[in-house]
Amino acid sequence: MNIAVLGTGSVGQTLSGKLLELGHKVVMGTRNVAEAQSRNTKDGYGNPGIGEWIKSNPGVKLATFADAISFGQYIINATQGGKSIAALKAGNPGDLDGKIIIDIANPLDFSKGMPPVLIPELCNTTSLGEEIQKAFPQSYVVKTLNTMWCGLMVNPAMIGGGDHNNFLCGNNSEAKIEVRKLLFQFGWKEENLVDLGDITAARGSEMILPIWLRVMSVKHNGAFNFKVIS
Amino acid sequence: MNIAVLGTGSVGQTLSGKLLELGHKVVMGTRNVAEAQSRNTKDGYGNPGIGEWIKSNPGVKLATFADAISFGQYIINATQGGKSIAALKAGNPGDLDGKIIIDIANPLDFSKGMPPVLIPELCNTTSLGEEIQKAFPQSYVVKTLNTMWCGLMVNPAMIGGGDHNNFLCGNNSEAKIEVRKLLFQFGWKEENLVDLGDITAARGSEMILPIWLRVMSVKHNGAFNFKVIS
Repeated sequence: MNIAVLGTGSVGQTLSGKLLELGHKVVMGTRNVAEAQSRNTKDGYGNPGIGEWIKSNPGVKLATFADAISFGQYIINATQGGKSIAALKAGNPGDLDGKIIIDIANPLDFSKGMPPVLIPELCNTTSLGEEIQKAFPQSYVVKTLNTMWCGLMVNPAMIGGGDHNNFLCGNNSEAKIEVRKLLFQFGWKEENLVDLGDITAARGSEMILPIWLRVMSVKHNGAFNFKVIS
Repeated sequence: MNIAVLGTGSVGQTLSGKLLELGHKVVMGTRNVAEAQSRNTKDGYGNPGIGEWIKSNPGVKLATFADAISFGQYIINATQGGKSIAALKAGNPGDLDGKIIIDIANPLDFSKGMPPVLIPELCNTTSLGEEIQKAFPQSYVVKTLNTMWCGLMVNPAMIGGGDHNNFLCGNNSEAKIEVRKLLFQFGWKEENLVDLGDITAARGSEMILPIWLRVMSVKHNGAFNFKVIS
């Protein structure tokens, strides 16, 4: 399948690498290709800059947001939440129509220091997932995977035998079925997927981030996830 | 121990009943005692009105917020989040100084329909727990138990052998040690308590509510909780 991954940070890199390994064709979308290719400084966690990463992963193509969106049958939004709608709007008119947008981003606001808060205009009474769906009403937005570290997104068996939860929500049932198939390829099991209903549930899954960040600061490690016990 | 439970809804009733069973002396605080005594209509979940409940639980005394606060060595805040600070301010000047306030409330806003959102002025960049601590700087606020249904608060073994998590946070380490002792009496085990640090972590635990409400609407049952898997 042809998949566009928007965003070149560690989340975009992790998803793109896994999708390629699974046999998909992957184009990573970025704002400025030349600038991205020259970005070689590691991030705060020691992950490579995208320029270095793309050289070690020649199977993944780097393109503008517009070219990536045009290429993708599925679009994975792994951009910074505050820049997601602009990135998606960089697509050519109509290029997102009828496509599934898998939104794994969070509307984090780092402007007030650490730990980040959520962007007030994108939380509580709305959410990034909802605002993307409103901006692209002909697309099928499915919010998922945003409640965990990217290493677990594509390798849930890394902890607890994979027995922890991934939430998903979206307005279109068939789109959610398609996204589940991709999640199964990542190693998720049916019994660990929790469908929360329509896209308004993205408020809840995005609002997990503040406690996720606090738990991470206590554990000094992002390799954990939540499980619903009943 | 003398414990004040502020709030007469199902959460206040459940906590008060359990504390009495454990041998504590309990005074429930309410705005208007006479009005509360005559409140006999069941709530939406079939829980008794406080008037009826107090008749069946004669060991618990009903008093004004001020009298309850004056009586309590510990104060448990089980009021509606939007009314919590007013309830605590009803105490006589200085009556909360040096006392532990166990804040188990959430700043839910039902004014826009179901499911509720959080009160915007009490979330994301602040929290109910933080605002209570600011309003009563001589008290020791510990936020805990607010991420689950009240039945589980006092009986964690009801699900999963009790192996799920209760978060707590607060600025004073000794106050958190005291609150842990009470949590142990409720049946919580040390290994299931997650100390998230200072009271600003209340943002995270209160912001769990939106996904909690969505999971409840999927499960049609409040007897579930989150566990951190790593």
